Amino acid sequence: MKNKTISSIGEFGLINIIKKQFSNSNSNNVIVGLGDDCFCFNPQKNNICITKDMLIEDIHFKKEWTTPQKLGEKAIEATISDIAAMGNVNPKYAFIGLGMPPTTSEIFVKNLSNGFKKACDRHNMTVAGGDTVKSDKIIISVTILGTSKHKLIKRSGAKPGDLIGVTNTFGDASAGLFLLRKYGIKHKYSKEELFLISKQNNPKARICESQKISNHLNSLTDASDGLYISIDLLTKESIKGANINMDKIPISSSLRKVHKEYKKALDFALFGGEDYELVFTVPEAKAKLLKKLVPKISYIGKINSSKKVKYFYNDKEQKIKYSGYKHF
Amino acid sequence: MKNKTISSIGEFGLINIIKKQFSNSNSNNVIVGLGDDCFCFNPQKNNICITKDMLIEDIHFKKEWTTPQKLGEKAIEATISDIAAMGNVNPKYAFIGLGMPPTTSEIFVKNLSNGFKKACDRHNMTVAGGDTVKSDKIIISVTILGTSKHKLIKRSGAKPGDLIGVTNTFGDASAGLFLLRKYGIKHKYSKEELFLISKQNNPKARICESQKISNHLNSLTDASDGLYISIDLLTKESIKGANINMDKIPISSSLRKVHKEYKKALDFALFGGEDYELVFTVPEAKAKLLKKLVPKISYIGKINSSKKVKYFYNDKEQKIKYSGYKHF
Repeated sequence: MKNKTISSIGEFGLINIIKKQFSNSNSNNVIVGLGDDCFCFNPQKNNICITKDMLIEDIHFKKEWTTPQKLGEKAIEATISDIAAMGNVNPKYAFIGLGMPPTTSEIFVKNLSNGFKKACDRHNMTVAGGDTVKSDKIIISVTILGTSKHKLIKRSGAKPGDLIGVTNTFGDASAGLFLLRKYGIKHKYSKEELFLISKQNNPKARICESQKISNHLNSLTDASDGLYISIDLLTKESIKGANINMDKIPISSSLRKVHKEYKKALDFALFGGEDYELVFTVPEAKAKLLKKLVPKISYIGKINSSKKVKYFYNDKEQKIKYSGYKHF
Repeated sequence: MKNKTISSIGEFGLINIIKKQFSNSNSNNVIVGLGDDCFCFNPQKNNICITKDMLIEDIHFKKEWTTPQKLGEKAIEATISDIAAMGNVNPKYAFIGLGMPPTTSEIFVKNLSNGFKKACDRHNMTVAGGDTVKSDKIIISVTILGTSKHKLIKRSGAKPGDLIGVTNTFGDASAGLFLLRKYGIKHKYSKEELFLISKQNNPKARICESQKISNHLNSLTDASDGLYISIDLLTKESIKGANINMDKIPISSSLRKVHKEYKKALDFALFGGEDYELVFTVPEAKAKLLKKLVPKISYIGKINSSKKVKYFYNDKEQKIKYSGYKHF
């Protein structure tokens, strides 16, 4: 079977590949569906939450390190993570801007679109609009709109005495990226290394966890740029400080096996990005209840009114210097 | 004064340039403003309209052919045009994804952001969120959300007997681009040529016109890819046909002066893009009323039930072959 390129199927061929998978949105509050000048709907007394993310080839991903389907899934999950970071919100509609070289194969677009579909189905969402343009590198720009009738949880609500909680382990995704950078995708990896790579290529947004716990939280964000940055944002926006117990930061057994030097594993956990776990603060009295709702939660520190974040290891203060990803 | 680059001011420096201009959004239905994980608001019983557009350097614009401020304005206006194409809708919030080479100067970003601001102020909108990433070429991805309590006008509502109307002249923007491609920006242009270039670099969305007339319309779109494509979309989506009187297509006196050969001017009008005029259909009985509301309206043809679009010049049918922009 001949593999056609986008150049041969044209803009409308490209749009139709994606449209076909998402046209059956049978939501009864849609007024003007996918394919007109705008997508229009009635929010039925819900509040609206919107976020936008962009993935660019060779900056945020390399085609040869993943599959088009996983790339599509990740583009949606990474953006939804910001929706999870607002609390009990239902992601509803994705709007996808695609930049593609004309030489891109039709099958690549189909698989990418399958990935969008898989992630959307997981969260009961649909692609409701977008734009396709020519570009040198692949660009995936995703806007997601969610709706909510619940209290929305800002970064800025942390209170002195709040425990700082996280929903799962840190450092896996960036340790996976480290392996891909060093050895590429075709290397013979151990089971643990493959786990790290899967966390890099196939992250999942914590929508479900956020819906379960957010009602009890004082502040909330997601850790797309690493735990250190998330703690920094929560405390700065709340005009508070924190003591962090580094030995409480959850690290997966895979990451510990791959990086036996604990300090190295901890570096990935603190400064590595793309874990997409939730980072939140909660009054101490609610901490146990939350662990019942989401057993993988760990508490890693406590908010105070000092406006400084201090890191401790075995109760001894540690000097920490930021060494994470610089966006520019 | 030293001109800093994005690389030296970093991601947060870049975000702050834009945030500073838009943080004073005092709309009382905003729940979580610019700068948290999502932007959240209460739509207060309005319907929501969303559209997304993407501009890429050297594909959709060349830095040397325009100013950063005009580029910022155009990115917003071109996207708002899709909001105008839904009828009486208020554009409210813009979400901007920016891809930038690290060597981009801070002053460029400031001027670009001034352009966003200028267009937003014109339409009583604000930038409410976004994302900034590193890229080789400048990428401007704009999502715009509008709200409406009015009937939304689809492309698919055209009825036999409807007149086909347009809000102003066609072909100017693409004739301007033709000049820029041929002579660059520094050429000594005539007054008429400068008018065409200004229509290319500084288009305005027809929000106001749409709000005035849309209540009377059966179908509506905007002409971002040229008049020919817009007529094709309206008739196809409505499962109708049309007779078009080419001699009624409005062409500016500037375009006629620059391209004295009428056929050439008409080619720009039919196949050139980026005019961002509205193309609509309206029952004949309402045609005069609409011209009172928006005097620049012209009627260029009539819808019929044939499913074919025929073009006439001086009542003689013409064979028309599409020769416009191919996106891929």
